[in-house]
Amino acid sequence: MPKVIFHYFNGKGMGEGARLLLAYGRQEFEDHRVPFEEWSALKPSTPFGQLPVLEIDGKQYAQSIAIVRYLGRKYGLNGQDIEEDFEIDQNMEFVNDIRAKAASVQYEADAVLKEKKHEDYSKNVYPVMLNKLDEIIKKNIGHIAAGKLTWADFMFAGMFNYLKFMLRIPDLEKKYPSFQQVIDAVYTIPQVKTYSDNAPKTEM
Amino acid sequence: MPKVIFHYFNGKGMGEGARLLLAYGRQEFEDHRVPFEEWSALKPSTPFGQLPVLEIDGKQYAQSIAIVRYLGRKYGLNGQDIEEDFEIDQNMEFVNDIRAKAASVQYEADAVLKEKKHEDYSKNVYPVMLNKLDEIIKKNIGHIAAGKLTWADFMFAGMFNYLKFMLRIPDLEKKYPSFQQVIDAVYTIPQVKTYSDNAPKTEM
Repeated sequence: MPKVIFHYFNGKGMGEGARLLLAYGRQEFEDHRVPFEEWSALKPSTPFGQLPVLEIDGKQYAQSIAIVRYLGRKYGLNGQDIEEDFEIDQNMEFVNDIRAKAASVQYEADAVLKEKKHEDYSKNVYPVMLNKLDEIIKKNIGHIAAGKLTWADFMFAGMFNYLKFMLRIPDLEKKYPSFQQVIDAVYTIPQVKTYSDNAPKTEM
Repeated sequence: MPKVIFHYFNGKGMGEGARLLLAYGRQEFEDHRVPFEEWSALKPSTPFGQLPVLEIDGKQYAQSIAIVRYLGRKYGLNGQDIEEDFEIDQNMEFVNDIRAKAASVQYEADAVLKEKKHEDYSKNVYPVMLNKLDEIIKKNIGHIAAGKLTWADFMFAGMFNYLKFMLRIPDLEKKYPSFQQVIDAVYTIPQVKTYSDNAPKTEM
């Protein structure tokens, strides 16, 4: 078995999807959770000055969604043809659009503008996007795409708490039970559950 | 041959990459350039209320990068294995990070903050990212990834003027000759050149 190290901060964020996929693939890995005070020393050695970074036998893999797509294909959690792969990519890109919108608020440095944007998006942007996502997941019988378990479900489940935090909707999965379905589809897989039960507990 | 319609605004933006790939694949397509005044009427019929949308025999394909990846695989412009595909995805995701940074300035509604952000990013963010991209392209002998022509080159070439506009660096390709290499690798392909020579002229 190759030597695998997964470098990310001590949180789920944009890294948990990959950890869940590694667990799914029964790939042993060193779960390297980088303390913030060590990050600046590590940063220059990463491909883009960002985390997560997956390391397989010394080779570095960066960019969160590229990583989960890669692991998904490795473990057979992709589409059966380029049409299905497309659908997974398309819907994942939409989920990422929602994250990016929420992140543009979360990481707004100007405090007044931040609140103004949050109010605006909460009223005019998030509901439309979340309803659309709900519609997509219902159509895909509790999955992000292709009507079956794919790597996109892992990414969504892994980033869910982070997304919820940025959207400031603590009961998001109650408002959209379909979202909970995706999470359950991933976390009830025995080897994923085992990883999750034993992983450090973090809020998001 | 399937009936193909490509719906986008009258510009290159995030749509030209797909047009260039369709031209590469010698796929005849209706180049539907949606006037802004018609957009609100069309919007509800699109999968995510966004353009571009590629339509093949009535089936709709949305999300710009998912579309170019799909067309790239269709026309053999992807990697030879999941490792190479990963590398293309990773580097494309990085190019998209640059676009997203610049777009967060371009679409900032608060005019004062917009200029403040532009100054900050021009000094502290863009140079690092652009140097990194330059390094990547040099390593890949004039390509975005995998040391060869891939769909990521088409996406980059197609969005280049839009990126340049948002970064406010009119001579970007002079500052980074490697970027011009990618553009040339795409636009000198005979069937792509023919499309481009005959396409409506737009700034970006």
